[in-house]
Amino acid sequence: MTNGADRLLATLEHNDIEVCFANPGTSEMHFVASLDKATKIRGVLGLFEGTVTGAADGYSRMTDRPAATLLHLGPGLANGLSNMHNALRARAGIVNVIGDHATYHRDLDAPLTSDIEGTARPFSHWVRSSPSPDTIAADTADAISQAEAGRVASLILPADTAWNPVTGDPAVPTAAALPRPVLDERVIAAAAKRLRASGEHTAILMGGRSLRADQLAVAGRIAAATGAHLLSDTFAPRTERGAGRVTTLKVPYPVGPSQELLADFDALILVDSKEPVAFFAYPDKSSVLTAAGTTFFEICPREGDALAALEALAEAVGATDADVTCDGIASGAGTAEGRGQTAELSLPGMPSGTITPEKIGAFLGNAIPEGAIVVDESITTGASFWVQTVSARPHDWFSGTGGSIGYAMPVAAGAAIACPDRPVITLESDGSGLYQPQALWTQAREGLNVVTLIFNNAKYQILRNEMANVGVPDFGPKASALLDLSDPVPNWSAISEGMGVPARRVETVEQLDAAFSEALAEPGPRLIEVMV
Amino acid sequence: MTNGADRLLATLEHNDIEVCFANPGTSEMHFVASLDKATKIRGVLGLFEGTVTGAADGYSRMTDRPAATLLHLGPGLANGLSNMHNALRARAGIVNVIGDHATYHRDLDAPLTSDIEGTARPFSHWVRSSPSPDTIAADTADAISQAEAGRVASLILPADTAWNPVTGDPAVPTAAALPRPVLDERVIAAAAKRLRASGEHTAILMGGRSLRADQLAVAGRIAAATGAHLLSDTFAPRTERGAGRVTTLKVPYPVGPSQELLADFDALILVDSKEPVAFFAYPDKSSVLTAAGTTFFEICPREGDALAALEALAEAVGATDADVTCDGIASGAGTAEGRGQTAELSLPGMPSGTITPEKIGAFLGNAIPEGAIVVDESITTGASFWVQTVSARPHDWFSGTGGSIGYAMPVAAGAAIACPDRPVITLESDGSGLYQPQALWTQAREGLNVVTLIFNNAKYQILRNEMANVGVPDFGPKASALLDLSDPVPNWSAISEGMGVPARRVETVEQLDAAFSEALAEPGPRLIEVMV
Repeated sequence: MTNGADRLLATLEHNDIEVCFANPGTSEMHFVASLDKATKIRGVLGLFEGTVTGAADGYSRMTDRPAATLLHLGPGLANGLSNMHNALRARAGIVNVIGDHATYHRDLDAPLTSDIEGTARPFSHWVRSSPSPDTIAADTADAISQAEAGRVASLILPADTAWNPVTGDPAVPTAAALPRPVLDERVIAAAAKRLRASGEHTAILMGGRSLRADQLAVAGRIAAATGAHLLSDTFAPRTERGAGRVTTLKVPYPVGPSQELLADFDALILVDSKEPVAFFAYPDKSSVLTAAGTTFFEICPREGDALAALEALAEAVGATDADVTCDGIASGAGTAEGRGQTAELSLPGMPSGTITPEKIGAFLGNAIPEGAIVVDESITTGASFWVQTVSARPHDWFSGTGGSIGYAMPVAAGAAIACPDRPVITLESDGSGLYQPQALWTQAREGLNVVTLIFNNAKYQILRNEMANVGVPDFGPKASALLDLSDPVPNWSAISEGMGVPARRVETVEQLDAAFSEALAEPGPRLIEVMV
Repeated sequence: MTNGADRLLATLEHNDIEVCFANPGTSEMHFVASLDKATKIRGVLGLFEGTVTGAADGYSRMTDRPAATLLHLGPGLANGLSNMHNALRARAGIVNVIGDHATYHRDLDAPLTSDIEGTARPFSHWVRSSPSPDTIAADTADAISQAEAGRVASLILPADTAWNPVTGDPAVPTAAALPRPVLDERVIAAAAKRLRASGEHTAILMGGRSLRADQLAVAGRIAAATGAHLLSDTFAPRTERGAGRVTTLKVPYPVGPSQELLADFDALILVDSKEPVAFFAYPDKSSVLTAAGTTFFEICPREGDALAALEALAEAVGATDADVTCDGIASGAGTAEGRGQTAELSLPGMPSGTITPEKIGAFLGNAIPEGAIVVDESITTGASFWVQTVSARPHDWFSGTGGSIGYAMPVAAGAAIACPDRPVITLESDGSGLYQPQALWTQAREGLNVVTLIFNNAKYQILRNEMANVGVPDFGPKASALLDLSDPVPNWSAISEGMGVPARRVETVEQLDAAFSEALAEPGPRLIEVMV
């Protein structure tokens, strides 16, 4: 007998979904049992649902392909939502399979009953509940179509849909490709005209999936030919960078510096990005970062073909000749000026002694291995890391796209599963890491090559800064206690060992360097607690 | 200057809200700063939002009063939803304050923007976004009214509502009491008639806030006078039990035994409970637990006055005489028969040697101190605990009301803050505890008298049972791996120490007894990892 769960998994497998990150419950037991029939799909257990959805995000960022998840009813879905928020903003493709009570059981209001569709909707592009085993294959294919376009699809699977026999058409459908947004030739022509007229006062702002080596190379040619500047989103899902890659200038997080930067441009060409706005509102500051009267040319909307758009623009400005070269950047000290230069390998000198945030940045610039995937949630400690690693060995860099905290360790797990031969380096702050430390266990279970650096400063330093930014210079002891992680200071080495990941605490750059080398040399995950 | 945040906190304080469990972010900095002006409100930091909402649930279960929470935007709210689900089912009153972007910032679609109202709605009775500092006091009072009725109220606070000055009426409003459901005298009369005619085949099913000593005492008199049975919900928020308390027979979790029990009754009198249904649906089993033709008398709907309803019923059946007594139960071996007996103190003998689940139950029956608050999430390990503690020293017992896993350690923190002079004992299974271990840090930070027993069996044993229940007797290696917590086995002692809670691992009852006594004797939290 083939049941609905079997059909669901056969449809996933037929459409080349290779991994299902899962935290199952009773209502998903048939799905779990069917997993053993889908021989090409790997099941990966997360102890908390944030690990599940975050890992799917990380997997998709590396592969540009969807992962599946398995979540248990409304509360299980709820636990996965915050990382789904980041995935939505990262253009990660995910097929969430959310178990539900049997269709006839839902109206009885049993204790675990809740509005699953309503819960999924704010964090999904697409939500559907599949009413029967005979609809599940088509519904799964529709969900995959969505996810292949870089969207979050939430498919609700009532228990009886999973366990009842299939009676209909036994064919397993192939997911149809969704039409991509058509590039508007007139917008590209207008952008080209502006670039030719005033390249120096024009910036190309890149985001989403456009920050890859190929797209950056084309953008670099345009910049070299026209004098345009290359900017990138403050929080981009994945940037291919380091030696040999065309550099961009990242729009700064603080409002003042970003407004200062953007004031230089009277036109912005948007490639898989949007008109830049402040991350938060602040009293007496504008939330719009660009100068009044700035003209925008959206040459590649979200989900558009960024490479095609950039190539069309390059052709229109006469930057098609691959011989058009840009100056190289050959410094680890942050001279990426957003002029489309290609970074040349230039490792900063290895610092020594007591650890400071700046020394960590120099260490990373020196030590990041070729092909590394860096997952950055270093918050205040990492303010200088981006600049200090511009000329490092070539690597990929992830940012927290939706601002939801705690994403890094789950996302690192998914990236490591997508790319088992590449080292993954998580840069994690102590406060952020404490939202979802369970991802370490999945890293241990799966033997993933992830090195996590935890920067332990025992406080929410960013919120202390933000207090001043929102106009509260002095605050009392109760407020202070809510921004403080001491009393007790979490012992990250103990937490990590408890989750099965060997850990070491370091207090000098020499110790950090030794621990890092050892961690890279050994298979499986390691955690280094960096006392800042 | 008084701003909106000041008004919000003044309104909470004026209405005797004593605690705010918080995990703030940038958009809540004015609220945090104002907390120091509200001198009677205690701020308690949680490192993860599940700690925040779970602690509010635990606080409210003990006080029947609301706690406030502070959550950061959509993703922060999302992380708190699963424990809000349990709170909804527990009739816990909570005023969630959820920070939002400034009103003018929301339309810009900054990275952290999401549909907060839509996210809150499935897990709240009441949702409102307050548009200005001049509306915030009245909106807060409305939220408190809801929470005082035992509901979850979610008040969204845009950042500019918090930071802008108040210009309107400076008076701080008192929350109006919501009208309670009127008891239906005809239903009570009909129930009394049925009890007089056929008490032996009638059961009184109690839940919600009715499982307190006073209400149970009246129900015991009714049972003694009429022969009725006393049953209680499988998952009740708080039951006052042990020596001196009238006992009930809990409706079993498995479908078969619960249907067998309920088949004996042709009428059920519902007191703050509902028609009992299966927790999950199973193939070929009915989801309805009562026999066909069962008559229901809902003498006290949810939010009704259970004591008044029971007293009216007692009067109607002539059980008003306080001299009507019931036989005592004087055994630790589980003879609570649901006949309204009062438990007499009877401590089971202290077992010894290697630990088994049954020995843990006997140990608890022997060792629970008077006045303890027991928060139970022991799942399969604890199957016999309820019966083995029926004649223990008087204590309160919490269950996972909504079935959302990981509730116990956060809820224990809130109960301990509500009742600092009473020992709190958390009975936690290893799999469940790993959803939200961050609550241990809050227990350490606040120096709470919580003893956590973790039952480490390194697997999701309940799901192994449920596989068979849903008709999957054999399953493959991938399914098996998803139900297994070994490889690596989490080291709970290390996790606990990492969170700042001293821990000890025990393998014999003697070690457990010694560690438990020591934990109770010392102030502050302790964790005991019980290897099962």
